[in-house]
Amino acid sequence: MVNNIVSLNELINQFARLPGIGKKTAQRLAFSILEQPPERAKQFAEALINAREKIHFCKVCQCLTDLDVCSICSSEQRDKGVICVVEDPKDIMAFERTREFSGVYHVLHGVISPLDNVGPDDLKIKELMARLAGGEVREIIMATNPTVEGEATASYISRLVKPMGIKVTRLAYGVPVGADLQYADEYTLARALEGRNEI
Amino acid sequence: MVNNIVSLNELINQFARLPGIGKKTAQRLAFSILEQPPERAKQFAEALINAREKIHFCKVCQCLTDLDVCSICSSEQRDKGVICVVEDPKDIMAFERTREFSGVYHVLHGVISPLDNVGPDDLKIKELMARLAGGEVREIIMATNPTVEGEATASYISRLVKPMGIKVTRLAYGVPVGADLQYADEYTLARALEGRNEI
Repeated sequence: MVNNIVSLNELINQFARLPGIGKKTAQRLAFSILEQPPERAKQFAEALINAREKIHFCKVCQCLTDLDVCSICSSEQRDKGVICVVEDPKDIMAFERTREFSGVYHVLHGVISPLDNVGPDDLKIKELMARLAGGEVREIIMATNPTVEGEATASYISRLVKPMGIKVTRLAYGVPVGADLQYADEYTLARALEGRNEI
Repeated sequence: MVNNIVSLNELINQFARLPGIGKKTAQRLAFSILEQPPERAKQFAEALINAREKIHFCKVCQCLTDLDVCSICSSEQRDKGVICVVEDPKDIMAFERTREFSGVYHVLHGVISPLDNVGPDDLKIKELMARLAGGEVREIIMATNPTVEGEATASYISRLVKPMGIKVTRLAYGVPVGADLQYADEYTLARALEGRNEI
């Protein structure tokens, strides 16, 4: 019987611990590993260990990298005077896709959230402050998510940074491009009205 | 930047090669590995290699096992005179859940499918024939899927087995328990009519 094979159950459990993967999917994925040549499993195992060992936070911006200082922070083309502060390394990918931002980033690795027991000291705020101490930075763009926690974190950091004479900005709120206004929520629409521009 | 980390991309690609896992999900899963302690990645890697190395086909029934002969084939409680022939090891789990079958199984590992270049020699049919040669088997239950290929495979095997004087049966067709008749397809309903039983 398949149910009592210890090593298979262990593999299923490992898959099931991944986010968004349920028991049934984990089973399907584990079986797919068994159906393929042993080298596939080996490559997968190596990729797991390799990635986890080689990738760490960039010394400067705290994003993920396999270098000492990431390719953005060490690029001559990027404007070190503007720092875009984000919650998560994945947010950087979203900004890079716009091809509109030539500054550098700083990853907080979370937001202040008292309910989840996450305070300012659990985030990479000290590291941000250390970067600002150099005096090279002209502007901080707060690009935390437009949620209650994201807002709170943005205003917490702006209160720390403003006294240093550094400009602090926040992403614009408004209606998303291509959206249908009749389905826009009232908060977004109110913010879009508030922030209206002359054409 | 995250996009040019070789070891991360390799991990994302490994996840994306799993069935039903797209690029976005693969990315999410890979990041979840990076967010967890290195021991987790190591455990996962070990589970992959371990499962792939230890699990192989049962010598007798060709199902998956980490033993020489699987626990069903080596059980004293199972009736070796009745073999239920299935396409896939996962089908065994479905039958075992019914707790109604006390015979043994044989896994074909596929069905005859000329379009996919799968012929009888690509399946575990030789192994089934070898089991039948012992003379102990009274009945073969063909439990391939109720698809065109499953039917073709069932009738191919039954043509081989019948001359040996062994009874060959096929799973009953009919309406599924708990189904709503108005949504039943005409083929299933026709088979259910055909196979009606007196009450």
